[in-house]
Amino acid sequence: MENFEFMSPTCFVFGRDVEQQVGAKLAERGARRVLLHFGGQSAERSGLLDRIRVSLEAAGVGFVELGGVRPNPEIELVREGVALAKAEGVDWILAVGGGSVIDSAKAIANGACIEDDVWELFETKRPNPQTLPIAVVLTIPAAGSEASKNTVISNDALGRKTGYANEAHRPKLAFMNPELTYTLPPFQTAAGIVDMFSHLLERFFDDYGAVPVTDNLNLSLMKTVRAEAPRVLADPENYDARANLMWAGMLCHQGIAGLGRHEDWASHALEHELSALRPSITHGAGLAVMFPAWMEYVCADAPARFAFYGREVFGLCPTGDMLADALSAVDETRAFFASLGMPTTLEELGVFEEDIERMIPTLRANKGECFGRLKRLSLDDARAIYRLAL
Amino acid sequence: MENFEFMSPTCFVFGRDVEQQVGAKLAERGARRVLLHFGGQSAERSGLLDRIRVSLEAAGVGFVELGGVRPNPEIELVREGVALAKAEGVDWILAVGGGSVIDSAKAIANGACIEDDVWELFETKRPNPQTLPIAVVLTIPAAGSEASKNTVISNDALGRKTGYANEAHRPKLAFMNPELTYTLPPFQTAAGIVDMFSHLLERFFDDYGAVPVTDNLNLSLMKTVRAEAPRVLADPENYDARANLMWAGMLCHQGIAGLGRHEDWASHALEHELSALRPSITHGAGLAVMFPAWMEYVCADAPARFAFYGREVFGLCPTGDMLADALSAVDETRAFFASLGMPTTLEELGVFEEDIERMIPTLRANKGECFGRLKRLSLDDARAIYRLAL
Repeated sequence: MENFEFMSPTCFVFGRDVEQQVGAKLAERGARRVLLHFGGQSAERSGLLDRIRVSLEAAGVGFVELGGVRPNPEIELVREGVALAKAEGVDWILAVGGGSVIDSAKAIANGACIEDDVWELFETKRPNPQTLPIAVVLTIPAAGSEASKNTVISNDALGRKTGYANEAHRPKLAFMNPELTYTLPPFQTAAGIVDMFSHLLERFFDDYGAVPVTDNLNLSLMKTVRAEAPRVLADPENYDARANLMWAGMLCHQGIAGLGRHEDWASHALEHELSALRPSITHGAGLAVMFPAWMEYVCADAPARFAFYGREVFGLCPTGDMLADALSAVDETRAFFASLGMPTTLEELGVFEEDIERMIPTLRANKGECFGRLKRLSLDDARAIYRLAL
Repeated sequence: MENFEFMSPTCFVFGRDVEQQVGAKLAERGARRVLLHFGGQSAERSGLLDRIRVSLEAAGVGFVELGGVRPNPEIELVREGVALAKAEGVDWILAVGGGSVIDSAKAIANGACIEDDVWELFETKRPNPQTLPIAVVLTIPAAGSEASKNTVISNDALGRKTGYANEAHRPKLAFMNPELTYTLPPFQTAAGIVDMFSHLLERFFDDYGAVPVTDNLNLSLMKTVRAEAPRVLADPENYDARANLMWAGMLCHQGIAGLGRHEDWASHALEHELSALRPSITHGAGLAVMFPAWMEYVCADAPARFAFYGREVFGLCPTGDMLADALSAVDETRAFFASLGMPTTLEELGVFEEDIERMIPTLRANKGECFGRLKRLSLDDARAIYRLAL
């Protein structure tokens, strides 16, 4: 078990109607003027934004608004948010939405406290201890951004999509009402499930041996996500299924499921290039294609680990041939994603053989000549995995 | 899944040699004068206290000392600590030890910020939002007090032992070096294991239905504790086994293993009366006797839940008779505790038939006429469970 330092400072307010507490909880924490940040029109149409505005007004918390965050959030809107936050003297960011809105809010929270252009942080990864505090009303359980230290932002002008990790921008407040997820379209629900499951896989498969306390906890979350997934897809207004999935989604990426391990993150790096190339690709859908391809490519390097995963999560019986067991676990993973209606090939995402070379230079810019932990991947390995995914 | 609010503000610094960072981390957080609080002589003899003093001095953090915390910590020393903290203008409490020292530190942290005698908080359970911040160097993984909201203090003059829960006194910093637990005597290691396992049982068995995300996580911790227990007892200097157990012990009582559930806590209430009656009884040893007795008494009220636990944690095969399966799970629990060298009867703890009536009035004072959730227990039920444990 490796040494680690871990802190999760988020106060989680979980359950029915919790969004009505937004104003009071922010006021308690001294918020005076928040930037209300959101995505498209669904939060407006559903009345959620109005309920939040009423809650803020009732608590005497002022606010300015910035909507329009798109999936794969972009740096231009972040810059607009930074300018607005500075001009309006905003002291909290309130993100209403899923991972894209929260990631955008994190970027703004950083940018509002520095002089430089905020993209510099993504480019240089330099530490930034000072950010505005963030509160979240979560509407899409998937990215786990409501408690994580990570944000991922696209820069269309540069054709880049890259992450920035900062302990200081972990949200301080997260309001999680499972009922708000009832109206998510099946595709988004499914992509979210793949995203959270992938956050567990990235932590489970690396170049470190067993860490039973962390591994068992991680596997327990995999089993939960796998069991709740068909329940929410079959019955979108099943409160308990939605609630279990929403809470699991947070735990999948908060950090606790990888403590004491190295973690891998090669599959996320491979996926980021897909959605940098085609911003219309949903992150979870990209992962549904790339993760099984990565697994197939590397599983011969750690067959026992993959076989263990297959037994625990999919109930596979050992055949006596460890590599065959490992490959069966990979097949089960792909089949699980397919059962949710997710794509299994790059072609389904509109990415073809000739696109591979277009992704390599930005992959190099983001990750250098090699990346990943379970197997150190060269850029040639990356080419091979993309080809395997066609 | 019930609504909940949850926050775990502790920064965990985990691994080899982390106690050397105590001074620097406290200085970073603005500590100027800490109360160094500890138990008997073992931390002195091992050199741990000296390493901590050196670390504080190197970081320019002043300190005053108060040792002598006993198992089942007592209110008189807490009062001494409160007076010292007030007189010396202490701004942090630094607890070096296990659950008893940390619980004592929590009581002092509360008492230092109120005018009244600190026992009033235990008596009235009234909220106290203001406490001194607490840092912990953990030497005994068991109570989970390094991250929990709970403290339990004895009052010898009143013959009482009771708890006080306060979100504000959750420790802000916890240094967890598994090597510091190498020298724990087998009895204390084993009692700690029972304590952490009991924290999971209290959360798993209640009057609420399934909460899969929480239940699976809880069961994963039970499996971890059960698997690591024989490893640490057979090989006390096995770093990985000690590390897994230390981290699990925190997770067992931080709160995460019961979120969305009601939780029970009857067995802890029954045990507290044992160690109030005989302060020499180690909490974990008392639980090793009382928990299986409670389980035996109540399992007919929720046989499916007990059978599920037996399958998941002990690998028991269903026999078709649910109540028999439930009773087998109870037997396995008792056998697990016995395998660690823990007592299985009250007589082994020096508690006899004639002592039962002596515990009932204080049980009534602490819990009223009925308590527990899986089955609401009357004081007559309590008598019956004590008798079952003889």
